[in-house]
Amino acid sequence: MSAPKRQKLDEEERNTSLPSLRKTGWTEVEGRDAIYKEYLFKDFNQAFGFMARVALKAEKMDHHPEWFNVYNKVQITLSTHDCSGLSENDVKLATFIEAAANSITKCDE
Amino acid sequence: MSAPKRQKLDEEERNTSLPSLRKTGWTEVEGRDAIYKEYLFKDFNQAFGFMARVALKAEKMDHHPEWFNVYNKVQITLSTHDCSGLSENDVKLATFIEAAANSITKCDE
Repeated sequence: MSAPKRQKLDEEERNTSLPSLRKTGWTEVEGRDAIYKEYLFKDFNQAFGFMARVALKAEKMDHHPEWFNVYNKVQITLSTHDCSGLSENDVKLATFIEAAANSITKCDE
Repeated sequence: MSAPKRQKLDEEERNTSLPSLRKTGWTEVEGRDAIYKEYLFKDFNQAFGFMARVALKAEKMDHHPEWFNVYNKVQITLSTHDCSGLSENDVKLATFIEAAANSITKCDE
C-alpha cells in the first residue's frame, strides 16, 4: 500500500484543498487529474533560482514536478504517478511552490 | 544589427555545424528552424544537476534553452529569438549541453 501522502485525494480532501489552490491561480488540467500553474518572473536568473528552490524541495519530498521553462516563464504541472491523480503531496508541493514564487517576486519589487 | 553569434546560420555554416550535432543525437525540429534532443538520466538529482550546469552556461551566454523536465527526463529545444532560427549560439550551447550530459553520465557509470 502506498503511503497516505501518495494516495488519491478523496472527495472531502479535494473540497478542502483545491479551492484554496484555485484562489492562488492553480487550475485543474482538462482530461487529467492534475493541477497546473504558469509563473512569470523578471528574467531567467529569477526563474531558474525559483526552479532550484522547487527542485530541492521536490527531491526532499521524493515528489517531482513536470515543468517547462523558457527564459522568464515556468509552467508547472503536478500529479502523482503512484495513484494516477492528485494526492496530498501535490497540494503540499503546490503550496510550497506558490510561497517560493511569492518570496522571489517580493525580494525584487 | 545583431552580433554575429545571434545571426541566422548561412548555408555553409549549416553544412559545417549541423551534421556533427546530428551525430550526437540532436535533430532538426519539423516546421521550425530549431534543434531538439531528449536526455535521460539516472534520476531527478542527476537531471537537475545537469540542468543547473546548462543554466549557468546559458545565463553567461545570454542564450537560453526551451526545456521540459519530468523526473530523469530533460527535453531541450534550441533556437535564437533574435533571428527566428538557428544561430552560432545554438550550435555552441548544444555542444556544451552534449559535453555536460556526457560528463554527468560518465561520473556515475
